[in-house]
Amino acid sequence: MSKDKPSIPKGTRDFGPATVVKRNYIFSVIKRTFEKFGFQPLETPTMENLSVLTGKYGDEGDQLIFKILNSGDFLAKISGQDLEQGYKPLTRKISEKALRYDLTVPFARYVVMNRNEITFPFKRYQIQPVWRADRPQRGRYREFYQCDADVVGTNSLLCEAEIVLMIDEVLSTLGLDDVTIKFNHRGLLAGIAEAIGAFGREADLCVAIDKLDKVGQEAVNQELRTKGISEESITNLQPILGLSGSVEELLPQLDKLLKDSAEGKRGLQDIRGMLAFLGSFSQTQAKLELDVTLARGLSYYTGCIFEVKVNNAQMGSISGGGRYDNLTGMFGLPGVSGVGFSFGVDRIFDVLEELNLFPQDSQTITQVLIANFDEASMTYALPVLQAFRQAGISSELYPDSAKLKKQMAYADQKNIPYVLLIGSEEMQSGQLNLRNMRTGEQEKLDLPAILAHLKNNL
Amino acid sequence: MSKDKPSIPKGTRDFGPATVVKRNYIFSVIKRTFEKFGFQPLETPTMENLSVLTGKYGDEGDQLIFKILNSGDFLAKISGQDLEQGYKPLTRKISEKALRYDLTVPFARYVVMNRNEITFPFKRYQIQPVWRADRPQRGRYREFYQCDADVVGTNSLLCEAEIVLMIDEVLSTLGLDDVTIKFNHRGLLAGIAEAIGAFGREADLCVAIDKLDKVGQEAVNQELRTKGISEESITNLQPILGLSGSVEELLPQLDKLLKDSAEGKRGLQDIRGMLAFLGSFSQTQAKLELDVTLARGLSYYTGCIFEVKVNNAQMGSISGGGRYDNLTGMFGLPGVSGVGFSFGVDRIFDVLEELNLFPQDSQTITQVLIANFDEASMTYALPVLQAFRQAGISSELYPDSAKLKKQMAYADQKNIPYVLLIGSEEMQSGQLNLRNMRTGEQEKLDLPAILAHLKNNL
Repeated sequence: MSKDKPSIPKGTRDFGPATVVKRNYIFSVIKRTFEKFGFQPLETPTMENLSVLTGKYGDEGDQLIFKILNSGDFLAKISGQDLEQGYKPLTRKISEKALRYDLTVPFARYVVMNRNEITFPFKRYQIQPVWRADRPQRGRYREFYQCDADVVGTNSLLCEAEIVLMIDEVLSTLGLDDVTIKFNHRGLLAGIAEAIGAFGREADLCVAIDKLDKVGQEAVNQELRTKGISEESITNLQPILGLSGSVEELLPQLDKLLKDSAEGKRGLQDIRGMLAFLGSFSQTQAKLELDVTLARGLSYYTGCIFEVKVNNAQMGSISGGGRYDNLTGMFGLPGVSGVGFSFGVDRIFDVLEELNLFPQDSQTITQVLIANFDEASMTYALPVLQAFRQAGISSELYPDSAKLKKQMAYADQKNIPYVLLIGSEEMQSGQLNLRNMRTGEQEKLDLPAILAHLKNNL
Repeated sequence: MSKDKPSIPKGTRDFGPATVVKRNYIFSVIKRTFEKFGFQPLETPTMENLSVLTGKYGDEGDQLIFKILNSGDFLAKISGQDLEQGYKPLTRKISEKALRYDLTVPFARYVVMNRNEITFPFKRYQIQPVWRADRPQRGRYREFYQCDADVVGTNSLLCEAEIVLMIDEVLSTLGLDDVTIKFNHRGLLAGIAEAIGAFGREADLCVAIDKLDKVGQEAVNQELRTKGISEESITNLQPILGLSGSVEELLPQLDKLLKDSAEGKRGLQDIRGMLAFLGSFSQTQAKLELDVTLARGLSYYTGCIFEVKVNNAQMGSISGGGRYDNLTGMFGLPGVSGVGFSFGVDRIFDVLEELNLFPQDSQTITQVLIANFDEASMTYALPVLQAFRQAGISSELYPDSAKLKKQMAYADQKNIPYVLLIGSEEMQSGQLNLRNMRTGEQEKLDLPAILAHLKNNL
């Protein structure tokens, strides 16, 4: 057996108890909201057949898929010739499976495989880890969770409106109340391309505009030139990039600008449809902002697109999504329109830490520790312990008669709010000593009073 | 892009909503119980360094570990010579990481890596999937969840007693009330080896006796002969294999039998210690049975061992565990005693299905579906929908004005207990039509009455 100092693979993380508890708090808020809106959970296998994944994420993405070596003698069917052709063709011969790269492709695969059993519209959410062989960096991991919710099988703009409502509910429940939900529509981007005299070039436009926030207007123009967009088109684009104002102010300007573009008009109609639904619900906390420069990289979006920013924190987008018309087309099932979005849990975690928004009781598992002085106090404590647990109070008895200081440190480290001290005096009187670890106050109470006190204060 | 019919790797499973919801019910009962007893959650990465895993599960186990191909040009550092040495040495050159095979070794690795930050005793639970390249069979998968709870850093027999209490609480909460918790102690097995004149041969004894249930007494004896156990020892063993009766009846017989064995006496003392703790708690539902033929395969157990059987179901052990004295020794940290156990969720799932024990409300996500007749009813429904959600009721509005039959089928398929029908008459009167999908009853009520009705009935 190896006695080397053990380690974990770079880009992966152990989540110790304090972190898991906080992460679970975020997951539970997301999950509760998804379910409140009628989304059902789906779980797909960690391993997918390599043929399901390859070709779905571009060449660069394919390189980042973690492949699993075939079990047993994977060399048995390999010849010297296979080796000479390099590692890429060889990979296909010694590996048939890979770790999932996102939750979208497995979802599309699931829908196609189960199309006859699924009742559409199908509202599913999925909270599972994904793996990417990216170079690890601060905030970028090789294993991380995605939290996706998608509806497929309906064109209704109610779904877009409900995405806004869900984002608002999750973030305001987490205490994030200064949030902007930016949205745009792929049709607007196509219409703008048309309007500036660059018909059909919206893909290049998107890629360049997507970087506007990061690199600035001049660098975007330079990229557009490199892509062969004419100077005239670039000049026409400038006032559009500078458009600002409320949705109500922007829509009439866009009506004028895009009046000759079918795609542009489709985009404006969808946006008005979504806003009409939102108007029927009472006001959301999040600010809604139409941003015609919002592009989002993923090429499969065809309708509304979303991106969410916390205004008072140092962090990029914490959620995003949009409508796609043909996600299942990659597996031979065309014409299933859908719309979905995703929360970035690692980023939300960092924002909540930065703003100190994790509630204290989201950080506690054990609610009462009973200190262990000696065999007599331990024996006395056992039925007390059982009474706590029967009352639904998470509790434990320190298993050894260790020094009190050590037991207190244990309670501190586990963030346990109450310690019960049962010395010989307490055993005689039945008045047990309950210590509030946050305030340092101690109170002598009998068991029923302790149970009542805890019920009221936990 | 591939248009082939997509599939998933053999031995893996998609969990559709109906299954996830039932599985989550089991997980939540287990999790709630672990936390009630003061266990904290830990999560370790899916990928471990191969060096952490190899050599921990025996040669056969090593073969069943899923290895991950190094990313990039894994052939770059490979020579023709490497290839001639066969696939096993080559694996080490093209793979550095692997999928975790169980939760025990990663836990030991975590404890050793974080020994300076952890406050002992460390009570952790871990509910995560593991992967084994086993030949898939009915009930045996290549990806499956383990639910482990362990305490390390204390010898207290309170931990053994609490394992019994937790097993009892989880299974009785799930409605499994005819359960036997079998236990034994490795010291008893060593003592029996000594008593029958086969001192030090308890490992061979365990391996053979472990199969008693499956192959019968004669085949066990045959295996013992093959292992070189003398005829005299085998003859001495027979009455011991046949020992039966309550714990109270067995203990005095074992006192006599093992009076000259230090290991045997240690085992009896531990068992009495555990039973004394259990006696201080009120009676558990599960039957406790001392079974001196219980061996459990895993060689790292050194103290009490457990195994759990549901008596009225066709299923093997659904939970098991025991005490080990040196789990972290494999990573160079000796002397950390611990005790732990694990629930088999797939088996529990099958038992609950067999006995029809999944509660109906554990199978529901959406509680109310609002039917969608036309644009007017849809607009009317939006604030109603919001009122439901604000009251904490999971609800959805069918997104399209589809045929009612289709919408009802949707509610049925999602197991939604109530459908709200808002036709033109209902909109005028404000008396909305609430249909109970289980009974078929319909009732006309205003919104506050509906909210009250749902609050009382969900």
